[in-house]
Amino acid sequence: MKSPVGILAASCHLPQHKRSVEDLFREEGVNFSSHVAARLGIKQVPIRNGQASESASNMAVAAGREALQRAKVDPLTVDVVVEYSIMPQEYLVPVWNMSNKVQAEVGASKSFVVGFSGGGSSNFMVALSSAAAMLSENDSMKTALLVTGDTTIPGNRVLNPDDPVTVMGDGASAVVLQSDAPGGVVIDTELWSDGNNHDICYIPGGSLIHPDDISLYRMRLDKARYDAFPKAETLRRLSDKLLERAGLKFSNVACVLCSNISSQDEAVMQQAFEGKVSPVCASNRESHGHLQGTDFPLNYLSLTESGSVKQGDYVLGVSHGMGTTAAVSLFRY
Amino acid sequence: MKSPVGILAASCHLPQHKRSVEDLFREEGVNFSSHVAARLGIKQVPIRNGQASESASNMAVAAGREALQRAKVDPLTVDVVVEYSIMPQEYLVPVWNMSNKVQAEVGASKSFVVGFSGGGSSNFMVALSSAAAMLSENDSMKTALLVTGDTTIPGNRVLNPDDPVTVMGDGASAVVLQSDAPGGVVIDTELWSDGNNHDICYIPGGSLIHPDDISLYRMRLDKARYDAFPKAETLRRLSDKLLERAGLKFSNVACVLCSNISSQDEAVMQQAFEGKVSPVCASNRESHGHLQGTDFPLNYLSLTESGSVKQGDYVLGVSHGMGTTAAVSLFRY
Repeated sequence: MKSPVGILAASCHLPQHKRSVEDLFREEGVNFSSHVAARLGIKQVPIRNGQASESASNMAVAAGREALQRAKVDPLTVDVVVEYSIMPQEYLVPVWNMSNKVQAEVGASKSFVVGFSGGGSSNFMVALSSAAAMLSENDSMKTALLVTGDTTIPGNRVLNPDDPVTVMGDGASAVVLQSDAPGGVVIDTELWSDGNNHDICYIPGGSLIHPDDISLYRMRLDKARYDAFPKAETLRRLSDKLLERAGLKFSNVACVLCSNISSQDEAVMQQAFEGKVSPVCASNRESHGHLQGTDFPLNYLSLTESGSVKQGDYVLGVSHGMGTTAAVSLFRY
Repeated sequence: MKSPVGILAASCHLPQHKRSVEDLFREEGVNFSSHVAARLGIKQVPIRNGQASESASNMAVAAGREALQRAKVDPLTVDVVVEYSIMPQEYLVPVWNMSNKVQAEVGASKSFVVGFSGGGSSNFMVALSSAAAMLSENDSMKTALLVTGDTTIPGNRVLNPDDPVTVMGDGASAVVLQSDAPGGVVIDTELWSDGNNHDICYIPGGSLIHPDDISLYRMRLDKARYDAFPKAETLRRLSDKLLERAGLKFSNVACVLCSNISSQDEAVMQQAFEGKVSPVCASNRESHGHLQGTDFPLNYLSLTESGSVKQGDYVLGVSHGMGTTAAVSLFRY
C-alpha cells in the first residue's frame, strides 16, 4: 500500500425478528439433536419479515446510509460503491446488481459501481483488496462504500440438512473505506483459490442450465470435499505469508476475526490461530448464525465495542470461502 | 498507473455455427423488416451447438488457454483470474463462478479468482481497471488473466422484441495483462454509474424474487429509459476527462472501439467521437452481433490485425453499459 487506506466506519442492518434454530430445523424437516446443536453453536438467526423494507437491497441501502453517516461522509464524495453480496440477488444480470440500486438510493451519484460474485464469504476481502488497490493507486479516488445484503432462500436456512454445516440468517452491512483514514488501516490482503472446488457449493436452479426447476433452487454442498479442504491450514499459511510481507510475526497479532459458521469451524480456527480468535465471533455466531457477507462487519463492530483492542493493534480477518477462495486481511486498529 | 500494465495477448473462442438474424427473428416470433435490419446492421451471430464443449465456461476455458499460449505465459505464474461475464452463468452463487472453473482448468493454481457482475458490457473495463490497479499496486503480483464466457438464453437472442435493440450471440474471450508489458498499455480507465438505471435491463426470473417462473427468465429492457440515457455524451465526457488526466487531447486518439450493439448505436458513437470509431466494429457487428463481454477483445484483435494502428497510437475503448455503468479505457499500442 503506497497510501494507507482504512475503515472509517461500518454498519450492520439486521431484521428485528429472530427465529430459533430449533424452529428452523423443524420447519425444514431437519433432525435437531443436542449433538448437532453443540456442533453448530447457533441459537437463533435474524430472518426477514417478508416486507419490502427487509429485502436484501433495501437493507443494504439502510446499512450504506448509516455507515456514511457514522463516517461523516457526504454521499456525493463517494468514488466507488463496491458490492460483496454472496446470496442470490433479487434479480439477475446483465446490469442488475444491488450495488447500482444502493448507489442511487444513498445518493452516491458521482461514483461508479462494482459488483463481485462467486467468492462466498471471502467476497468481502476480495472487495476490500480491490477497493484498497483502487484508492491507493488512483489519486483521483479517495472514498469507497462497500456494501452487502444477503437474504436466505426460504426453506433453505440449514445448509446441508443431512449433516448440517451452518444455519444462515438475513442481514446487510456496509463499510466506508478512505485513503489516509486515521485507523482501521487495511495493511494488505492475501487471497488464494482452489478452482477445483468451483462446484463445492452452488445453487443449480435459477441458472442458465436449470432456470425452471424450482426444486434445484437450493444451496448444494459437497460435504466430503468441504470437509477435506484444509481450511485452517490454508488460512494460517496465507496469514503467515501476509505477515511476513508486512514485516510482522504472528505474535504481533492481537486477535483474529473469522466467519460465523459453527462452533466446530471456530474450534479448528482457534487451534490454527493459537487461541487468538476473538470471543466476539462465538458470541455473534450464537446470536446471529452465519450472515454471509455481514459476518465480518458484525464481528469488527463488536470487537471495537468490546474495548479489547487498542489503537495500533494488529487484527487478522480470515475466511475460507467454502473451500474455493480463501482470504486473509490484515488491519491495524 | 505507477507501473505500466499492458495487454500481452487476447483470444476469442466462438461457436463454429452461425445463425442468420432473419432466422432468429422468425424463431422468436419477431417481425423482421428492412427498416429493423438496417437499424441493427447485424447479419448473423454465432450460436452454440448445445454441446458441453460450447457451454459458456468451457468456451471461457478454451479462450483462457489460448490467450496464455499466445502470451507465452505459464499458467502457474498467473496471479489472478478475473471474470467479466455478463450473461447468466451456468450455476448460481455462493461460490460458483466460471472464474473458479477456469482457474482450475487452465492450471492457474497459484492464483486467486475474482468475479464481477452487474455492469453489462462495461464489466470488461471494470475488470481491467481493477486488475490494472492490483497489478500496479502489489509488487507481488505481475500477471492477470481476464476471462468471459457469455451464452444467450434460448428464445431470447433478440433484445426487446417489440422494438429490437440488438441481436445477441454466444462466445468467450480472454485477455492476459502483465505489468511492464511491451505494448497495449492500459493507461487509465474512467467509470461512472447512474444507479437510477439499476432496473433498466435485467432478468426477473431465476432470481431470489422469482426463482420459479420460467416465463420471467428473459432479459427485460426499459426501452424508453434506455433511449433517454445520454450514451454518447456521457462516453465523450468521460473520455475527455480521462484524456485530460493523461495529459492528452482527443486529437491524439487514433481510434475508438465500441460495443457491437447496432448500426444505430454506432452512428451515435461516430458522431460523438468525430468519426474515429474503427471500421472493425461495424464489420464485427455485422458478422457476430453483440457478443457481450467478447465485443471488446474481438474488436481489439481485429484492430491489431488490420494494421491500421501502429506502436505508440492511442486507442479508446468505450461502453455505455446499457445506461447503468459507462466506461472508457485508454490504451497505448
